[in-house]
This record gives sequence, structure tokens and C-alpha cells, in this order.
Amino acid sequence: MLRILIDMDDVMADATKQFLDLYERDFGIRYTKEQLHGTKLSAIVPPEHKQKVLMYPHRKGFFKDLPVIENSKEVIEELNKRHEVFIVSAAMEFKHSLYDKFEWLAEHFSFIPWKRRVFCGDKTIAKGDVLIDDHDFNLSLFAGRAIVFTAPHNVHYTEYERLDGWLDAHHFF
Amino acid sequence: MLRILIDMDDVMADATKQFLDLYERDFGIRYTKEQLHGTKLSAIVPPEHKQKVLMYPHRKGFFKDLPVIENSKEVIEELNKRHEVFIVSAAMEFKHSLYDKFEWLAEHFSFIPWKRRVFCGDKTIAKGDVLIDDHDFNLSLFAGRAIVFTAPHNVHYTEYERLDGWLDAHHFF
Repeated sequence: MLRILIDMDDVMADATKQFLDLYERDFGIRYTKEQLHGTKLSAIVPPEHKQKVLMYPHRKGFFKDLPVIENSKEVIEELNKRHEVFIVSAAMEFKHSLYDKFEWLAEHFSFIPWKRRVFCGDKTIAKGDVLIDDHDFNLSLFAGRAIVFTAPHNVHYTEYERLDGWLDAHHFF
Repeated sequence: MLRILIDMDDVMADATKQFLDLYERDFGIRYTKEQLHGTKLSAIVPPEHKQKVLMYPHRKGFFKDLPVIENSKEVIEELNKRHEVFIVSAAMEFKHSLYDKFEWLAEHFSFIPWKRRVFCGDKTIAKGDVLIDDHDFNLSLFAGRAIVFTAPHNVHYTEYERLDGWLDAHHFF
């Protein structure tokens, strides 16, 4: 049995889609995930829109409405039967994200008990055997097995094992 | 430089006093901290009051109004200059505690940056050199140096180093 730490944004919850949706609503332009290859929306929009995009996660409700990433629920529920799954999410930067993420987990991942939920800032605090995350700044400092979950902004990472969608998880555990 | 993990309730924030205050308001009886020696309020009130006492932490605002434990602010601010202080608090059991604790830290401990704040359930997830906590179920599973912070319910613990008020901290670090 492994202790598997799983990130939320762009691993369980489709934060990227929320950015694209909000941007389209505000500016009438639809970027695609393909256009984000290796970067984030705030880096490719016209400079005068950047500040507004960076403020999206500060909005109340931003993290509450996120779509569930394809197959994440079914696969994580299955993993959770054989391993000790902890949800480890950065949620201290944006005031409303705490409540929004709490509600989101209650709605979509109620099978993860409250004892296995962690909201933090710096993930170097988290101890486990495996970390599944979308960001180099988390993966690179993790002492255990670091697995990158494919998201548009991390397609160029080469230094980690890669989980390319949740159906791939059976190759790992 | 040590990574020092510090619990909130009954270490930084006087949750015990909040229990005693609410109980007095509801039932007109003032218990003292001395009467709680080795136990908690819910264990010594008349059985018919127990359920109400156990529900106090579920109330919105319970964790927001807690008095700051004597000298904790000054001593932790000083420790934070020489060490890496993380606040590690159980905040997943009670829905409103997330927001209340976030606000409480912002008000009283704004010098602890958001990256050094952790709200969790099971503290075995937390990695550090030192844990200062009031509960055996956290201290006993910690891999580093476990220090009990004196609170009425833990006066009988003998298996840990003991921090008997924050002014004692200079003996430890």
C-alpha cells in the first residue's frame, strides 16, 4: 500500500478549461488547450488582458464550478481502495479557494475522507510515497516518486514519469 | 534552521476558553480550566449537555473569535526569523473552520506567509523537524521531535518534551 498524494487543479479539476471559458466570456475570443502548449493563458493573451486573467482564481466560485477531469473520479476511487490516497492542493493563496475546494471535493470526491484532504501553500510539507501533480515547482522538490499529470503547460517536461490521462494509471500502480 | 510545525487550537488559539465561554452562556455554569485537568469539557458536563458542547466547533465563527494564547504571537514571530515555521492545523472536519482559521491567521499571524500555512486532517502527512501540538494522536505519530504544548487535557502526558507556555520556548530552540 502506497501513500499517494494527488493535486487538484489540472489533475482532478479542469482549471484550464475554466480560464478559457472565463476569457471567452470576457473578451469574446476562444483560445484552445492546444494553443497553451507549454505555457498558461495569462502568458499568451494581449498584455492589457493579462491582469484580469491573473485575477480569475481570486473570484469566489472559480474553484467550485470546475469540471471534473475525465476518468479521475472512477480511477481515483479505485486507487483509494488499494492505496492511501491524500488530496494535496494549494489553496492558501486565494481566499475563496478554501471553501470552494472543500465544496468541490464534497460534491465530486466524497469517498475521500476529510482526514485525507490537505490544503496548503508549499507542498514540500507533504510526506508520501508518490506525488501526482502538474507543476515542476512541486514535483522537483518531492522526496518520493514524482509523476507529472499531463496538462497544456507541462507538455515539455521530460524529467518525470508522465501520467497522460487517468486511464493510464493502471501502468503505474 | 529547523522546520517547526505549530498547531493552532490550544497552542496558538485558546479554543478551550471558547468552549468554557459558550457553555457558560448556554447553561449558566462556569467551568474552569483547572476542572478540565486531563480531559475535555464534553467529558465532564452533564450527559444531556454533551451533544451541544460537541457541536460548538461546527458553528460558523467558533474558530474566528478565539483569543490568542499568551505570548504566542511575539515568540512565534521571533522563532520565524531564525527557523522555518509552518502552521499546521486540522481544519477539514468542521466546514466553517477553514474560513475562520484563514481569517484568524490573517488577523493575528500575518507574518506567517500563505505558503507556510497548512490545513489538513491527518497530520501524519506533515513533514518537519519539530511538531508543537497539544494532542497525543498527532505527537505520537510524528517522525521528528515532538513537543507537547501544555493544555488542560494533556497535563498527564509524560512521553514528550513539554512546552509550558510560549515564554519557555527559548529553552528549546
